[in-house]
Amino acid sequence: MKQIYLDYNATSPVAPSVLEAIEPFLTTHFGNPSSSHSPGRAALEAIEDARMQVAALLSVGREEIVFTSGGTESNNLAIKGVMLAGGPSGHLVTTAIEHPAVVEPARFLERTGYDVTWVGCSAAGVVDPREIERAIRSDTRLVSVMHANNEIGTIQPLAEIAEICDEHSVLFHTDASQSAGKIPASAPELGVDLLTIAGHKLYAPKGIGALYIREGLNLEPVLHGGDQEDGYRAGTENTPFIVGLGQACKLAGGSLDLAALRMRALCEQMHRGIEEAIGKTVPVNGAAAPRLPNTLSIRLPGVIGHELLASCPEICASTGSACHSEVHLVSPVLAALGLSSTEAQETIRLSVGWYTSEEDVAAAISAIAGAWHSLRPV
Amino acid sequence: MKQIYLDYNATSPVAPSVLEAIEPFLTTHFGNPSSSHSPGRAALEAIEDARMQVAALLSVGREEIVFTSGGTESNNLAIKGVMLAGGPSGHLVTTAIEHPAVVEPARFLERTGYDVTWVGCSAAGVVDPREIERAIRSDTRLVSVMHANNEIGTIQPLAEIAEICDEHSVLFHTDASQSAGKIPASAPELGVDLLTIAGHKLYAPKGIGALYIREGLNLEPVLHGGDQEDGYRAGTENTPFIVGLGQACKLAGGSLDLAALRMRALCEQMHRGIEEAIGKTVPVNGAAAPRLPNTLSIRLPGVIGHELLASCPEICASTGSACHSEVHLVSPVLAALGLSSTEAQETIRLSVGWYTSEEDVAAAISAIAGAWHSLRPV
Repeated sequence: MKQIYLDYNATSPVAPSVLEAIEPFLTTHFGNPSSSHSPGRAALEAIEDARMQVAALLSVGREEIVFTSGGTESNNLAIKGVMLAGGPSGHLVTTAIEHPAVVEPARFLERTGYDVTWVGCSAAGVVDPREIERAIRSDTRLVSVMHANNEIGTIQPLAEIAEICDEHSVLFHTDASQSAGKIPASAPELGVDLLTIAGHKLYAPKGIGALYIREGLNLEPVLHGGDQEDGYRAGTENTPFIVGLGQACKLAGGSLDLAALRMRALCEQMHRGIEEAIGKTVPVNGAAAPRLPNTLSIRLPGVIGHELLASCPEICASTGSACHSEVHLVSPVLAALGLSSTEAQETIRLSVGWYTSEEDVAAAISAIAGAWHSLRPV
Repeated sequence: MKQIYLDYNATSPVAPSVLEAIEPFLTTHFGNPSSSHSPGRAALEAIEDARMQVAALLSVGREEIVFTSGGTESNNLAIKGVMLAGGPSGHLVTTAIEHPAVVEPARFLERTGYDVTWVGCSAAGVVDPREIERAIRSDTRLVSVMHANNEIGTIQPLAEIAEICDEHSVLFHTDASQSAGKIPASAPELGVDLLTIAGHKLYAPKGIGALYIREGLNLEPVLHGGDQEDGYRAGTENTPFIVGLGQACKLAGGSLDLAALRMRALCEQMHRGIEEAIGKTVPVNGAAAPRLPNTLSIRLPGVIGHELLASCPEICASTGSACHSEVHLVSPVLAALGLSSTEAQETIRLSVGWYTSEEDVAAAISAIAGAWHSLRPV
């Protein structure tokens, strides 16, 4: 059975040229970047080249990029790093639609003496900048709002929120794990002080990520130890995957607009095709908001999402965020939109990517519609 | 110029069969282990197989292994995890010869309301269990003593320290980053509750590690987020390198005794050869203690280590721990032995591994002795 992979928001395959970039650093160039001999220096140079490639995608300085083990670590470093560096108490503003990698660091802070305000979102899945402003207090140190939501793809008004943060002299972090490589993610244009990216969402492997930290910011590290990464992140560098992330950022930056057009067309084809094949309107979560070009979160009327996907196992897709897929509770993001429990359970997330073809989409339409009909034998 | 790599304690190359194990998970099997579709499940199964392989090397249960991004993260999770889970204050006992990945988490705790006692070592580089016992207080929660020192290779009396910890109901962690794969590292035999390993010291890549956590222990995570790794460590799993670490542990376990004999013979050949070639006694740091079979930390009389290595750039070796090699301060470990500043500066660390040949050692003797003679033109 040929599988049709429509779960790029959970993870992407590694691009061939990324793999090619990685391989020499898994074999020949294995030196420790902290060593002063020639194999060490070769590794260090490769890391600095990759740092430049990542910085270019985000339009920032090379020295403002810190490599981490992934999006989760980047979010932990940004949020706990800023809050802990500011002392044993303080206030954080974040939202009800963040990824667990932001929610859980915030909850940890709540348990250990910090205050957190959780801002909701509109029915379209968008955070209102005025609500962020209302949440800011005199002891607010950091606002963290994701760039694009992982489950429904809605893009948040970061530039407006950045202006508010600036007026109130509050630092601003965004989790751009799901957006970087899909839409422009220039940190200066977004106006953020800290920005998270995750390798495995943009055709680099799992286990690598980066955090943009605006020059001069003081963060308490999450991983204490050696003086790697300018003291922001200890631990021997994952040279092969750092090199891979650099190449992935270079690739993404080079094809952003064209890839976005293609992905948006595929999503529209898929949505229309499913509607036609089942003969019903298929509501799109977040339809009224600007959304990622590759993400289609839809409600298939009258069926339960995970039952539908179980009926067409050739379709690799998601009913919620992959990070908590074992738990079939209603996704907190869908709940924040105001969806009923039934509507949330009807939801499936289809996310396409560079290697999704029109044929894949046609096959997906047929499989999903077939499963829908088999589950609704009217 | 053919390079002779004698810096296995800084990092090892990736074993060919480890690379083979990794590759399918960088290409075909790229699913997110948290996804419930078939590519996700394939990744999850591979992770669970690797967990069994790591557990076997440490003689522990599979469910007691947590994968991390490396030795530094494992040490951070063990030390900060235990201390923070116990509340906002408490006492930690560790030693003056730990790696920065233990020293710095301990210093972070000192800065944030915890007490730390730093126990010294003998001139031979060994921690005295009685000193650990004297340091334990009624509020001591954790003792952390490395298994083998990374710079001089001395093996610490963990089983004796474990008995003391047990008597006083204190948890016991060891950083076995440098020992696992070189000497037996059975957690039950060592008597530890937590044990760190680092992939890139045992022929797996940089960017992967593991922590043994005895069943039932409560740790505050270092990375908060999704519920991966049984809640101990959030973040999408680095499937390829986890699979690689599993294979590396399997390899290491299969060849431990023979490899140790071979490495010890190579180190002895190197030591005797250098002494003969320069016509002087070459003191070995930690000579009076049990040591790792692959580590030779020697003092070359009358020359400065980093000047010597600069004179024979074909030799890849270290003058201190790679993690702070850019800083030419006297290593804290060598200082703890009571070496004078001159003796510390005369020190070079030669560390051999699976791929070191007798020819490599012969060439190293000749290069090092040549450099020594050129720097001492008497």
